[in-house]
Amino acid sequence: MNINPVQLFDVESSTFTYILVADDNESAVIIDPVERHWERDLAHLERLDLKLAYVLETHAHADHVTSAGKLRELTGAQAAVPSGCGIAPAEVQLNDGDVIRFGPHDQIEVLHTPGHTAGSVSYVWRGNVFTGDTLLIDGCGRTDFQSGSSAALFDSVVGKLFALPDATRMWPGHDYKGQSVSTIGWERRHNARLTNRSKEDFGVLMAALNLPKPKLIDMAVPANQNLGLPHGA
Amino acid sequence: MNINPVQLFDVESSTFTYILVADDNESAVIIDPVERHWERDLAHLERLDLKLAYVLETHAHADHVTSAGKLRELTGAQAAVPSGCGIAPAEVQLNDGDVIRFGPHDQIEVLHTPGHTAGSVSYVWRGNVFTGDTLLIDGCGRTDFQSGSSAALFDSVVGKLFALPDATRMWPGHDYKGQSVSTIGWERRHNARLTNRSKEDFGVLMAALNLPKPKLIDMAVPANQNLGLPHGA
Ligand SMILES: [Fe+2]
Ligand SMILES: [Fe+2]
Repeated sequence: MNINPVQLFDVESSTFTYILVADDNESAVIIDPVERHWERDLAHLERLDLKLAYVLETHAHADHVTSAGKLRELTGAQAAVPSGCGIAPAEVQLNDGDVIRFGPHDQIEVLHTPGHTAGSVSYVWRGNVFTGDTLLIDGCGRTDFQSGSSAALFDSVVGKLFALPDATRMWPGHDYKGQSVSTIGWERRHNARLTNRSKEDFGVLMAALNLPKPKLIDMAVPANQNLGLPHGA
Repeated sequence: MNINPVQLFDVESSTFTYILVADDNESAVIIDPVERHWERDLAHLERLDLKLAYVLETHAHADHVTSAGKLRELTGAQAAVPSGCGIAPAEVQLNDGDVIRFGPHDQIEVLHTPGHTAGSVSYVWRGNVFTGDTLLIDGCGRTDFQSGSSAALFDSVVGKLFALPDATRMWPGHDYKGQSVSTIGWERRHNARLTNRSKEDFGVLMAALNLPKPKLIDMAVPANQNLGLPHGA
């Protein structure tokens, strides 16, 4: 299997956006689009001659604003989001085990992977998993706000993500070191935060990180819970 | 068809590097790797558990140095380069119509597409074309050095690249505007430099660009003709 998404990057927030193309080469979904890049993302859809079926979010982001609402308006796509993220205006509220269908045959399976936020999900598609900020390449998302929990993240990664086949390609929501893609097998064996660590040790490690509060969180989370649209719009 | 490469980016020179994975998910080739990212690129090969069969160059670059020689040494891959680029130490010298095989079934077809440089080639693989600096998204490479020729570039693009199927995904060697991928059909209909322009008009346009000499050219071209290895090494 070597079916990959188109991976797009936001340099400011180091956020990845993904376009997944169905096997009819006509229907597509986009995962975690970034507000300031809505024109770039529409340009890709136009050049590749794709019709957007869904805009997906992995969680309500704290570090950047989504363009989900804007892309929904401009393309006619539906917004599909994790049910536990408080993103009320989205028409599709996703739960663990749900399946999103697009194109004649393509399916995306929803895995509820709480920990970075209580509502976070991962998406599995054709040998790929899109992990949002739950599992990063050689790392993981922080667990100190938005009902984050290191114990829940540990269970999500070890119990659900590491249970996927080793060759599954892992596409993160961010990377801060210039890396783009990994595999479940490599992360299970080598992840600097999770490999060979007990849930308790992982909790101690995460509690000691002492990260600064994200600059944009007070603005971004409410904005993202409204799909990035102005409130009242 | 939705088989895409893994696309990697160098922020300094806005250069794309591509990893193409064969359908056995084991064998791979890399196109236009950048010197300063050799560790990043090896990390991707390791995480994806890939064996590198070939390092490919689209031409002898003037704006950055390749890691082709280094990757060849470290992985046992063969270096395969356009025969017209003066890259003497590469074991495989490619000509128009040659086919590179990797994995059990994968084939890359070589198209000689002169114009940006006299030796430049494009690579066609599973519904994708890697155009180097011959055709860029909504643009094209410059034609004012390294035996470049606007007339040759026009013939390469209009005669060879635009003759590929419309849905062929087009992956350029550079992008300076944050775009990642296009299609042959879109470029044939909308390319700002080439669409609806005669060869003569295109020549006038290219001659009037008056671009500064690339800062690194005097160092980079000889280095790249030695696969990025120190001379005498
Ligand atoms: Fe996040
Ligand atoms: Fe070039």
